[in-house]
Amino acid sequence: MSAHPSFPIHAFDPSDPVFRAHEGGKLAVTATKPLRDRRDLSLLYTPGVADVSRAIAADPSLAARYTARRNTVAVVTDGTAVLGLGDIGPLAAMPVMEGKAVLFKHFADVDAVPVCMESGTVDELVDAIARIAPTYGGINLEDISAPRCFEIERRLQERLDIPVFHDDQHGTAIVVLAGLVNAARVVGRPLASLRVVISGAGAAGVAVARLLSRAGIGDIVVCDSRGIISPRRSDLAEHKHRLAATTNPRGLTGSLADALVGADVFIGVSGGSVPEADIARMAPGSVIFALANPDPEVHPSVASRYAAVVATGRSDFPNQINNVLAFPGIFRGALDTGVPQVTEAMKVAAAHAIADLVEEPTAEEIVPSVFDERCAPAVAAAVAGLA
Amino acid sequence: MSAHPSFPIHAFDPSDPVFRAHEGGKLAVTATKPLRDRRDLSLLYTPGVADVSRAIAADPSLAARYTARRNTVAVVTDGTAVLGLGDIGPLAAMPVMEGKAVLFKHFADVDAVPVCMESGTVDELVDAIARIAPTYGGINLEDISAPRCFEIERRLQERLDIPVFHDDQHGTAIVVLAGLVNAARVVGRPLASLRVVISGAGAAGVAVARLLSRAGIGDIVVCDSRGIISPRRSDLAEHKHRLAATTNPRGLTGSLADALVGADVFIGVSGGSVPEADIARMAPGSVIFALANPDPEVHPSVASRYAAVVATGRSDFPNQINNVLAFPGIFRGALDTGVPQVTEAMKVAAAHAIADLVEEPTAEEIVPSVFDERCAPAVAAAVAGLA
Repeated sequence: MSAHPSFPIHAFDPSDPVFRAHEGGKLAVTATKPLRDRRDLSLLYTPGVADVSRAIAADPSLAARYTARRNTVAVVTDGTAVLGLGDIGPLAAMPVMEGKAVLFKHFADVDAVPVCMESGTVDELVDAIARIAPTYGGINLEDISAPRCFEIERRLQERLDIPVFHDDQHGTAIVVLAGLVNAARVVGRPLASLRVVISGAGAAGVAVARLLSRAGIGDIVVCDSRGIISPRRSDLAEHKHRLAATTNPRGLTGSLADALVGADVFIGVSGGSVPEADIARMAPGSVIFALANPDPEVHPSVASRYAAVVATGRSDFPNQINNVLAFPGIFRGALDTGVPQVTEAMKVAAAHAIADLVEEPTAEEIVPSVFDERCAPAVAAAVAGLA
Repeated sequence: MSAHPSFPIHAFDPSDPVFRAHEGGKLAVTATKPLRDRRDLSLLYTPGVADVSRAIAADPSLAARYTARRNTVAVVTDGTAVLGLGDIGPLAAMPVMEGKAVLFKHFADVDAVPVCMESGTVDELVDAIARIAPTYGGINLEDISAPRCFEIERRLQERLDIPVFHDDQHGTAIVVLAGLVNAARVVGRPLASLRVVISGAGAAGVAVARLLSRAGIGDIVVCDSRGIISPRRSDLAEHKHRLAATTNPRGLTGSLADALVGADVFIGVSGGSVPEADIARMAPGSVIFALANPDPEVHPSVASRYAAVVATGRSDFPNQINNVLAFPGIFRGALDTGVPQVTEAMKVAAAHAIADLVEEPTAEEIVPSVFDERCAPAVAAAVAGLA
């Protein structure tokens, strides 16, 4: 990964503002009830607490009312796909998970706790997560490598009665869909009519393809590092077989460059780079979401020569596609209503709720600011409306 | 269990003060760093956080400085032996674990998070706890049934490089030893000369026997529900075999009543009751710790007819033997020094530190108040002094 002006690779320097901001960690656990005297102690702990435990043992639904579980989400990772850093392990993943917990609290008053696990087989991770699940009202999977992440999420969803949400997949997909809904408005095209090319068939790419399809887009072509995913490929892993069966309706073969000829939308979630010549072959009035961080697949200054709307994952260009627009509100809505899972319909509704916060979308504004305080409540309401 | 005036068995009544004190749970997770604007976001989360993760990946020891792990303890249970309630499961255990976290924070500024697990085999529990261990600076095992708790603790200690401390064992043992140190002063006897009978061979009984032995007491007899534990018994589980080999130096056999004849100290951690006639056969100037909650093995008003010093687990009689005198300071000292485990020597030192807070022990005051704010720092210093 090359150094980038907005993303310098700092050597360890304790006086650096980044390191100072992380000194001592970023989270604390606090009591919400006062402990002043023996009476408080007898209410909050023994002997009083035994009554509450006994009541929950008799009626487990009371846990939602009398424990912190009702507002607590585990941010679970094994550290195998952290940001763009790859498999750096659970300890090094901790600052990211703490940061996520800070965002959960700030935007949606969700009490989120990191759970950084030693990696292992899918069975081992699923068993460990399921075993600790009674502690939490929801589970946010984070930075777990593909394709393991798909099976881990699916098996946990089957096993648990609380929402399990892999943010790298679904948070990204929701905000991409929100942006695309408004980009379609800007270019004056029905969403369903757009020809979409997705570069990247990992966690984000698979989820984006699935959610755009669910939202009514019929012509989606997904490319991995070897080119267009189609049933003719003999080198596909299981999750790509499913993509091959459900996307690429025109049966294209070839490279990403081939896929881009005449395409309306390019969505990059790959980390690779795309030559200007390939972008130039997209249809007029195209939409480019170059979401790789820190280096977009195509630089916005290049993309805007050809595209009508350009978005990135970065805060220093217009239209930042950032998961923080989705995940706090998703879990807020799920916790408030006690739904056992976040459905595809909820994700689509959340995307429209985000899009609708931009009253008059323009090429420079297709999504709200990450600091828009209306966003998490709007997403939560969308989720709750389908609960 | 019979209802007791100080421990009424409440039916579920949301207007009851106990239930009101638990409404919504007792814990929150908060950010320790401000998130005000895009600059804060870029420091605490992406892109800045990547530098911290990269630095920890290169040097894992930096996790102690730049993550919340340094001050975070998991309070882990499978809900199989909660208070006197037995196997009530992880959900019903949650209020107790939250209460424990409130005490950790109040007395020692430790950030403690409950982890309530589905129960399972020893292998399954050890694997799950070890897998999530990178998240924490220490693990407090809680309310896990005996004899599984012994093997779970031992195997975790072998596998992990952070302290693993089963509070039902060691917290109890430390405070019992503290009380006994001062009770010996009150009755004017050298600690090592005391003949001790322990009723109960579960988590607390085993740990108390072990720590009193470590502290120099040579004559310890442990009884379970079938009587005195000795090598002649053919019905002993593994952990009782070890007790048989290391206690009962005079080779006693028979019942608890037999063991009590001429004994100097009775320590009840069983939940059973002891007839007054058996207490009456103890040596003159005896010491009785009747720690079963809510109903002591012998009522203090009866015990004090025979004993010079009487202690219970209750707050409404003098000399409350309560783990909260030990566990907050134990973990404070362990976290501050980064020790990989809490050694037997540290436990003995902690007990003496607690005992020494009572300047002039009397029959009515052998341990400090649970609200004595000097206690956790004194215990932490004792642990740190041996680090």
